[in-house]
Amino acid sequence: MEVINRYVTIKTHVDGAPEESDFELKASAVALSLEPGSNEVIVKNLCVSIDPYQLNRMKSYSSSQKSSDFAVGIIPGEAIDTYGVGKVVISENSEFEKDDIVAGLLNWGEYTVIKPGGMLNKLNPMGFPLSYHVGILGFSGLTAYAGFFEVCKPKRGEKVFVSAASGSVGNLVGQYAKLIGCYVVGCAGSKDKVALLKEKLGFDEAFNYKEETDLKSTLKRYFPDGIDIYFDNVGAEMQEAAIVNMKIHGRIAVCGVISEYTDAGKRAAPSMIEVIYKRIKIQGFLAGDYLNIFTDFLSTTRDHLRTGKIKPLEDISDGVESIPCAFISLYRGQNIGKKIVKIAEE
Amino acid sequence: MEVINRYVTIKTHVDGAPEESDFELKASAVALSLEPGSNEVIVKNLCVSIDPYQLNRMKSYSSSQKSSDFAVGIIPGEAIDTYGVGKVVISENSEFEKDDIVAGLLNWGEYTVIKPGGMLNKLNPMGFPLSYHVGILGFSGLTAYAGFFEVCKPKRGEKVFVSAASGSVGNLVGQYAKLIGCYVVGCAGSKDKVALLKEKLGFDEAFNYKEETDLKSTLKRYFPDGIDIYFDNVGAEMQEAAIVNMKIHGRIAVCGVISEYTDAGKRAAPSMIEVIYKRIKIQGFLAGDYLNIFTDFLSTTRDHLRTGKIKPLEDISDGVESIPCAFISLYRGQNIGKKIVKIAEE
Repeated sequence: MEVINRYVTIKTHVDGAPEESDFELKASAVALSLEPGSNEVIVKNLCVSIDPYQLNRMKSYSSSQKSSDFAVGIIPGEAIDTYGVGKVVISENSEFEKDDIVAGLLNWGEYTVIKPGGMLNKLNPMGFPLSYHVGILGFSGLTAYAGFFEVCKPKRGEKVFVSAASGSVGNLVGQYAKLIGCYVVGCAGSKDKVALLKEKLGFDEAFNYKEETDLKSTLKRYFPDGIDIYFDNVGAEMQEAAIVNMKIHGRIAVCGVISEYTDAGKRAAPSMIEVIYKRIKIQGFLAGDYLNIFTDFLSTTRDHLRTGKIKPLEDISDGVESIPCAFISLYRGQNIGKKIVKIAEE
Repeated sequence: MEVINRYVTIKTHVDGAPEESDFELKASAVALSLEPGSNEVIVKNLCVSIDPYQLNRMKSYSSSQKSSDFAVGIIPGEAIDTYGVGKVVISENSEFEKDDIVAGLLNWGEYTVIKPGGMLNKLNPMGFPLSYHVGILGFSGLTAYAGFFEVCKPKRGEKVFVSAASGSVGNLVGQYAKLIGCYVVGCAGSKDKVALLKEKLGFDEAFNYKEETDLKSTLKRYFPDGIDIYFDNVGAEMQEAAIVNMKIHGRIAVCGVISEYTDAGKRAAPSMIEVIYKRIKIQGFLAGDYLNIFTDFLSTTRDHLRTGKIKPLEDISDGVESIPCAFISLYRGQNIGKKIVKIAEE
C-alpha cells in the first residue's frame, strides 16, 4: 500500500523576503511498508512548526548554516525538516508502535520517514492540544524559558523589554517575566497586538513601534529609570535604542533578528561606549543548548497553563498547502503568537 | 609655607580627537598646612596614569559620564583626577604619615589635596619601580587580568585575538593568555609594534592593521579554525571582522573602543545572525567592578614579573608639562605600552 505525500519545498534559494512564488507543493508516493530491521519509522504529520529562522536555511549562503545542526542549508526541491507532532503509521524501530503520538524532526509535508538516529520521541500530550507541543510546550517555549531565565538571569522587580512581543517566543517571555514580578513592556506592530499584550497577557505596557518616530525617546518614556533586560527578537534600530536605555549591568538576550534575516544591511550599530560603561552583556543563544532544562521548563509551563497563569497564543493554519502563506506571514507581521500548520486531524 | 602647584586642565570641553591647544597648564599656590582634624592629606604626585577613557570625561556630553564614579565629567579649568602614585607631604588623616608612599586618585598636577573619603591607600612598592604600580600592577593590569580571566573565562589551547595589542592593557592580555597556553594573535599600528609583540612579548603572531585591506580575510588567515576569545580595545570594523571569525561559544570582552571615543559615528554593526547562531557573548566591563580580585591579580602578576615571565611595557614622559602631549599621543597610536607621566622623583 502506498500514499501520496504532499510536501512543501523551495524552488530555488531565497535571499530576500520570501514570496509565495518561492515555494512549490510537490507530491510523491510513499510506500507504507518498511524493510524489516531498517529501524525506520513512518510518521503521519499532524502539526508542524513555522519558524522565522528557516529563512536563513533557505539562503544560498548564511553563516548560520555552518553553526548549528538545526540550521543546515535547505536544498531546493527537497523536503524541509521542522519540529512537529505526528502519529506513527508503521514502525521498524522497537521504541515506537503504530498509533504512537510522537514529537520530533518531521517536515513541511504530510508524512515523514524517520531514519535511524532521527530526532523522534514519544509524546505524552498530558491533556493539552497537540499544537501546544509544537509551540508553547515545544521549542518556542524552551527558547523563551531558557533565554529569559538562563541567559538574562532575571530578578524580581527588574524592568524587562521584549520586542516582537506578540510573537511565538516574545509573548511567553513577557508572561514568564510577569510571573516572577518583573515590570514588562512589549512592542509589536499593530494596535490589536498591543491591546492583546496588555489586556490578555498582562504586560504592564505595550506600544506599536510603527507609530513611534524616535525609538530612543519611546523607550525612555516607558523606562524612565532604564531597562535591566532586553529580550531581542528583531535587532536593528530597536537594539540600538534599547542599549541607550539600558541600566548598568543590563543584559540582552539576542534570540532573533528578523530584520536582518531578510536584509543583511539592516544591522544595529550600538554604542560600545554604552556597552562598556554600563557593563552590558549581549548574548546570542539557541534553545538547542538548553535541552538539559527541558524537563524543568515543561513541568513549570504545564502547571502555569493548567492554572491559567500562562495563556497560549497560537495562530493556526490548516492543511499542507497553507505552509508557504503561513511562513511568509511571519515576515509581514501577520501572525499573532506561535505560527503552526495543522496538517491533519489525529 | 606654600608651594606652587602646576596642573593640567582643559580649556573647554573636547568633542573630537584632542589637540595640544585644548589643554593649558595652570598654577596655583597650595599651603602646606592643614586644618587640624580636617582629615585631609596633601600628596606630592610622583607618577600619574594617562588613559584613553579620560577623553569621554572631557566631552560636553557622553553617556559614560553617568554610568561610573570613575567617569564623571571634567569641568574645564579644574584639575583632572587620575590614578597615580605619590608621597605624603602632610597628613591630618591618622592612616597616613609624612613620607608614606601612596596610590590612589591623584590628579594631572604636582600636588593633590585628598579630601576625607578620597581614594588613597598606602603602597608597598615590593621592590618594583613606582611606575609599575600606576600601570602593570595598577588599574591597567587589573583591567587586563579581570577582563581576560573573569569576562572571557579562557581555557588552555583556546585561540585569542587582541586589538591594540601594544597598548597598556592589550599587551598584558596577550602575555596572560600565553602563560595559560593559549594561541595569541595581536594587532597594532606599526611594524615596530608588531615586531615587539612577537619578539619581546611572545605573541604567536601579530599584524599591522594599517597594512591590511580586508580585516575579515586577515583574521581568517591567522585563525583558520576561528577565534575563541576577542579582547576588544578598538571597536568598529575590527569588531565586525572578529565576529565573522568567531567560533561557536566565542566571547568578546569589550574593554575600550578608542575609535568611537573620537568619532561616535565609527561604530561596529556586527551581524547578529553570527551572534545568535554562534552563541557569542559580547560583554562590556570596567576594572572597578573587580576590586575583589585585586589581591589575587597582584600576587600573580608580581610573581610573573619577578620570574621574568611577564614583561612590563611602559612609555614614560617626564614632567607635568608633558601631560597634554602624552595624552594626545594615545589617539595617534604613538604610545607603546602603558603611558605614564613621571611628575617628580621620589
